[in-house]
Amino acid sequence: VPLTLPPAGTAATVGVVGAGQLARMMHQAAIDLGVELVVLAERPDDPAVRAGCRALIGRPDDPEALDRLAEVSGIVTLDHELVPAAHLEALAAAGHRVRPSAAALVHAQDKWAAWERFEAAGLPVPRSLLLPPGADPEPAADRLGLPLVLKLRTGGYDGRGVEVAADIEAARRVLAAWAGREVVAQEWVDMEFELAVVGARRPAGEAVFYPLVLTTQIDGMCRELVTPAPVADPVGRRALEVAGAVAEAVGAVGAVTTELFATRSGAVLVNEIALRPHNSGHATIEAATASQFHNHLRAVLDWPLGSTDLIVPAAAMVNVVGDAAGSDPAGRLPRALEVAGASVHLYGKAPAPGRKLGHVTATGPDVASALATARAAAAALNADPASSG
Amino acid sequence: VPLTLPPAGTAATVGVVGAGQLARMMHQAAIDLGVELVVLAERPDDPAVRAGCRALIGRPDDPEALDRLAEVSGIVTLDHELVPAAHLEALAAAGHRVRPSAAALVHAQDKWAAWERFEAAGLPVPRSLLLPPGADPEPAADRLGLPLVLKLRTGGYDGRGVEVAADIEAARRVLAAWAGREVVAQEWVDMEFELAVVGARRPAGEAVFYPLVLTTQIDGMCRELVTPAPVADPVGRRALEVAGAVAEAVGAVGAVTTELFATRSGAVLVNEIALRPHNSGHATIEAATASQFHNHLRAVLDWPLGSTDLIVPAAAMVNVVGDAAGSDPAGRLPRALEVAGASVHLYGKAPAPGRKLGHVTATGPDVASALATARAAAAALNADPASSG
Repeated sequence: VPLTLPPAGTAATVGVVGAGQLARMMHQAAIDLGVELVVLAERPDDPAVRAGCRALIGRPDDPEALDRLAEVSGIVTLDHELVPAAHLEALAAAGHRVRPSAAALVHAQDKWAAWERFEAAGLPVPRSLLLPPGADPEPAADRLGLPLVLKLRTGGYDGRGVEVAADIEAARRVLAAWAGREVVAQEWVDMEFELAVVGARRPAGEAVFYPLVLTTQIDGMCRELVTPAPVADPVGRRALEVAGAVAEAVGAVGAVTTELFATRSGAVLVNEIALRPHNSGHATIEAATASQFHNHLRAVLDWPLGSTDLIVPAAAMVNVVGDAAGSDPAGRLPRALEVAGASVHLYGKAPAPGRKLGHVTATGPDVASALATARAAAAALNADPASSG
Repeated sequence: VPLTLPPAGTAATVGVVGAGQLARMMHQAAIDLGVELVVLAERPDDPAVRAGCRALIGRPDDPEALDRLAEVSGIVTLDHELVPAAHLEALAAAGHRVRPSAAALVHAQDKWAAWERFEAAGLPVPRSLLLPPGADPEPAADRLGLPLVLKLRTGGYDGRGVEVAADIEAARRVLAAWAGREVVAQEWVDMEFELAVVGARRPAGEAVFYPLVLTTQIDGMCRELVTPAPVADPVGRRALEVAGAVAEAVGAVGAVTTELFATRSGAVLVNEIALRPHNSGHATIEAATASQFHNHLRAVLDWPLGSTDLIVPAAAMVNVVGDAAGSDPAGRLPRALEVAGASVHLYGKAPAPGRKLGHVTATGPDVASALATARAAAAALNADPASSG
């Protein structure tokens, strides 16, 4: 399949399935590079479309829409994982370049497949069992202990589809609510903190990784991060080693983020991965020469990757999440801009409770001062100060 | 005139006359801020339109096109100076907010009006005289000396409309070529280097300025810059003081750049100003928390201005200029991306000899290493190494 001939001054055309905030920020990076993005958007007011990205309107599970996207773009990549693997395989079989491949993407779509791959590669993971639909949790609790972590095998995100059951009765209630679904049961990890490693990998395996990120989750959704993570070296070095092995094991192409648990006993365990730009990497826009969005595009285009060194001593990011009243942070922007040193990113979304509507990044001499700045600006954007994390 | 009611998640709508690379980079900043830009573009393939900016197609000197732009946007601002002042005055008289105002903009459009204003404000300027159409240059040369600098009063840019005449005969040839035009004759300044101060000013006068920039011009077009300018303090401090007084004297609103000559005798003289983002400020995208594009939008929206502190020790920028063969740097992008630490910006323009097609910024521990990095990547983008400056 020939590449669409781009107009003069265009370096390449890339198709993106999905048009959320990740595609929106990918579009900003694409403008730098003279790359034309075309997004497959479900709605004409999706964040990337509102940012001016060329768009086809269609569903990510519609083979015809995916075909049209592939035909107008040289390369198909993703803003989210909700694309059926079979459809991506069909695109690849038709000669389109799909990056990441369906075979890699399964590790971000299917928690059990990911767990099995990590374990087979000798990577450290929490002990886990697959529960078929209708299974009783008691045998799993006997082997993995209580509390028991239960995760939908597929379809969960931002903390949805993950529950912690304190006892067998609670576990049964969770499974009853998920009737008919496969569930991964996992040992509860005595976690000291959560880490993320954001990187990018080219088709032939060349990979780069940004410095370690310390993330704070609330209800399973990333709310805050600081980088470099203030983590002493055996754990910090191990996290970067594991993330490198994860990217290799799954055959990632493009941006790849590995989320890790650091336990109180000093172990590092792989939690889950994303094969696209990730919330944990947003501070790279300000803090590194090449952001995760630039490096995602460079990786899927098989171009040389950009430096992942931080150009500042430290950075922090705080998400802006919709409040219960559904009020619009865009109206509070001037107030947030009074916070010196904060970089505000709004996603152009209609507000809804719990919805990620934007983020604030700050750089600084250390993570504590950067975090204080980012929190202050995020708080100004949030009507309800409690929701700024 | 009421503001257009923006959709949820939109902080404001801003209209921009012109759709070149400055509007393109303004659009990238606008995406961060949830600001919707609408550009008045002459052609549907102008750089900002190719970056996905909403566009009206029309000429900047067409009152009806300007009216339509003002009606869909809350505020009208500019990507270039080629807008008749009378049209901007008519928009303001109709109740639209035009920033900068026609009264301010005249100082970027009319070199004599600017010179008179600077002189009246007690600011240091090269000695100058206005030559009416048909004037002989000899009296001016008698008073100002030789060589004599001749500038078209209006319409020049990027070195076009500026000539240096070594003797009276050369001056007569220049004036003959500009028959019918008013010309500013200026003393030749024994310049040691050129400086620029980029800043932004709000309607009530609050202003911020980035650290001093040292620029290198070739044939009157900015080719390279480094910041902070390696200039000792009496001169450096004086340049910043003068730039602050210039912004105030002309009533700038939005981004404002003052270009200055530093003479071998240690004086600082005002050369000219721009009342929009400027080539001298491009490194602020990577090197400062708030870029000149963010601060331009924040200033014209009368929002708090962002920090102009550099977040890195030093930065450099090198322009990518079209070669004689009209070859396309976009095709050489992967080669340029091999240069670690360089941030490439392509403008999505069809290549033409001498046309600004992009720029490269690098940050680093000092201006020399940043400049070496930026030059290496710019050279890789240029087919003809000589044209990378």
